[in-house]
Amino acid sequence: MWNKTKAAKMLGIEYPIIQAGMAGGITTPELVAAISNQGALGSIGAGYMQPAQLIEHIRKIHQLTDKPFAVNVFVPEEFSVSEEQMKKAHELLLPYQKVLNITETPEGKPVHTFDDHIDAILKNKVPVCSFTFGLPSRSIISKLKKAGVTLIGTATNVEEAIKNEKAGMDIVVVQGSEAGGHRGTFPETVGYPLIGTVSLVPETVDHVTIPVIAAGGIMDGKGIAAALTLGSQGVQLGTAFVPTYESGADPLYKQTLLEGTEETVLTKAFSGKPARGIKNRFITEMRTHEDMLPPYPVQNGLTKTLRKEAAKQGNPDFMSLWAGQGYRMARKKSAGELIGQLVRQTSEKLGER
Amino acid sequence: MWNKTKAAKMLGIEYPIIQAGMAGGITTPELVAAISNQGALGSIGAGYMQPAQLIEHIRKIHQLTDKPFAVNVFVPEEFSVSEEQMKKAHELLLPYQKVLNITETPEGKPVHTFDDHIDAILKNKVPVCSFTFGLPSRSIISKLKKAGVTLIGTATNVEEAIKNEKAGMDIVVVQGSEAGGHRGTFPETVGYPLIGTVSLVPETVDHVTIPVIAAGGIMDGKGIAAALTLGSQGVQLGTAFVPTYESGADPLYKQTLLEGTEETVLTKAFSGKPARGIKNRFITEMRTHEDMLPPYPVQNGLTKTLRKEAAKQGNPDFMSLWAGQGYRMARKKSAGELIGQLVRQTSEKLGER
Repeated sequence: MWNKTKAAKMLGIEYPIIQAGMAGGITTPELVAAISNQGALGSIGAGYMQPAQLIEHIRKIHQLTDKPFAVNVFVPEEFSVSEEQMKKAHELLLPYQKVLNITETPEGKPVHTFDDHIDAILKNKVPVCSFTFGLPSRSIISKLKKAGVTLIGTATNVEEAIKNEKAGMDIVVVQGSEAGGHRGTFPETVGYPLIGTVSLVPETVDHVTIPVIAAGGIMDGKGIAAALTLGSQGVQLGTAFVPTYESGADPLYKQTLLEGTEETVLTKAFSGKPARGIKNRFITEMRTHEDMLPPYPVQNGLTKTLRKEAAKQGNPDFMSLWAGQGYRMARKKSAGELIGQLVRQTSEKLGER
Repeated sequence: MWNKTKAAKMLGIEYPIIQAGMAGGITTPELVAAISNQGALGSIGAGYMQPAQLIEHIRKIHQLTDKPFAVNVFVPEEFSVSEEQMKKAHELLLPYQKVLNITETPEGKPVHTFDDHIDAILKNKVPVCSFTFGLPSRSIISKLKKAGVTLIGTATNVEEAIKNEKAGMDIVVVQGSEAGGHRGTFPETVGYPLIGTVSLVPETVDHVTIPVIAAGGIMDGKGIAAALTLGSQGVQLGTAFVPTYESGADPLYKQTLLEGTEETVLTKAFSGKPARGIKNRFITEMRTHEDMLPPYPVQNGLTKTLRKEAAKQGNPDFMSLWAGQGYRMARKKSAGELIGQLVRQTSEKLGER
C-alpha cells in the first residue's frame, strides 16, 4: 500500500500528503482542518502571524478536527541592513505607493515572533511542527521532542537534508526547484540551490535515513505517484491548495493561478529572499535592483502595505502571486475534494500496473 | 508493459530509453551501437562534427548494429557579434591561454555544417534524427519525412513542445531544468525556461498529442519509472552514459563525474549559451563577464582550444564538465550493462505494485 509509509505512521495520518504551510493568510483553520479530516496533513503557515492569531488558529482547528495537523514556522535569521540600502529601497517603492495612493512610509522593522510561535505550539497540543529557512536551536528541538511534537525540517539540497537528520528532525521535506513561494534554503548555504525534484529526491534518499517528503511541482496523482517512485515517503503540495474554496488566498490571486499561462519566475523583489511566482509589473521592474534590496525580512516588511493595498484595490501588478512551476494544473475545488481526488489518482496510477 | 509505448513503436526499439546526443566527442560509434544493440536508442551527437566524421560514425554504427539509432543535430541560429565583444572576449581568455601555454589566437568563426549533416543523414540510412536549439526549415522536415526518417524535436517549455508538434515532429523530448549540457531552448523563446521535469512532463502531455519523452535528472530505473508515471512515453538520459566504458568523454571528465559532490551550475562561459555542468575555475571567474560574451556559437569556437588543451594537460579548471543535477548517481559500467540495469530497475519499480 502506497500510503502506509513510515512517514505517514510517524505523522499519524492515513495518506502521506502534506499541505505546505504557506504563510501570508493562505492557510485558514478551515483549510487545515478540511485536509486533516480527509486523512492528509494540513499545516498552518505561521510565518508572518502574530502569536495571538496563531493560538486562535490552533484552537479553531482543534474544534474542527481531532486529526493531526502541523504548524509551519520560519526560523529567524540574522541580517544587517545599511541606511543607504533602506534609503534606496524606500525610493524604489515610492512610485508604486503613489500608484496605489499609499501615503504612509513603510517601516520594514521585523518583529521577532519565533519564540512565541514555539511557545504556542508547546502549549496548545500541536502534534507536528515544520521548519523553513534553516534549523532551530538545540534547546528548542529538545523541548519540542520532549513534548511529543513530530518535527519536519526543510532542505533544498542533500547537505541541508543531512543537517536536518543530524539535528534530530524526524522527517525532511526536500524542496525541488519547481516549488512556489520562498526557497527554504539555510542561511549558511552558499547561493540558492535550484535542484529539480526528479534529481533531489533520489539523491537525498541515498544520503539520509529519515523519511524524505518530496515537494516542488507536484500537482496531481501522477506527480504523487512519481515522487513515491523516486523514493520519497510522501509529498508536500502548496500551489494546488491555493485556489481551493477554503484557502484564504485573495480571490484575484486564485483567479490568476487558475487562468495564467505565463511561466513562473524567481524574484527577491517582494521580500529580499528568492521566491517563485507569476511574473507581474513589480517583479519585472524591480529585476535590475534585486541585488541592492535590503535582505529578508526587511524588504518583506517594506512591501507589506503595497501588497495588501494592491489586493484590496484589485491590482495584481503589485501582489505576490506565488506559484510553483506546475500551477497551470491547478483547479478550483474544495480542499477535501482535492485530497480525495489526489488519493484516487495516486492509487490508480500505482495500482494500474 | 511499460516498454510498449507508442514512442517505442515509432522508433522501432524495445525499450523507450534514448541516449542523448551529447556533442563534443562523448558519443562514439561503439557507445551508440552498444545502446541500440540492447534495445534502446543510441544517438550520435553530431553538433560539432565535420560532415566526413559524421558519415564515418554512421557507417561504423551500421557495421556494429542493425538496430535503429539516431543522429542529433544542432539547428543553426542567426547571431551577430561586435568587434568590441570579440576584443573583450579575446582579452578575457588571454590569462587562461597563458596558464596552458596556448600561443595561437582562437578564431571563433563558426563553420556551417548543418546542411551537410542533413545530407549525411539522408544518404546513409539513418532511421532517426533529433534536433536541438529549435526547428529546421519546412523543406528539410519534408525531405527527411519523405526519406522515412523519424523526427524528434526538443522543447524546454510547453510552447516549444506545441511548435514541435505543429512543425511535424513525430516525438518531442522535453528537457527539464535538471538536464546537463546545453539548454535546447529555441532562439525566439524569451529567456531560458528552467522548468523541472516533474512539472514540465505532465504540463506538456496536457498540451500536445505527439509522444513526450522526458529528459533532465533521470539517472536510474526509479527516475525512468517516475517519468513514465508522469505521462511520458519514454526517457532520454545523457549524464548517466558519460562515464560508461564506451563513451568518448575525457578520462578526467569521467572521473570528475564519478567523484564530484559539488552542485552543478548553469554557465554561458564556454559557449555563449547556457549549459549545466560542474563548477570549476573558468566558470567561477567568468561569472561576472557572462553577459558581455559573444553569443553562441562564437564563444564556443573561441574556447575550443582552451578546452581541448586543458583536457590534454589533465587540468579540469578549463574543461566543460557538463553534468545534470543527478550526476552523483552516475556509475562506471559498460553502456550495455547500464541499459540492462535500467530496464530491470524500471520493470521492478513498475511491477512491484
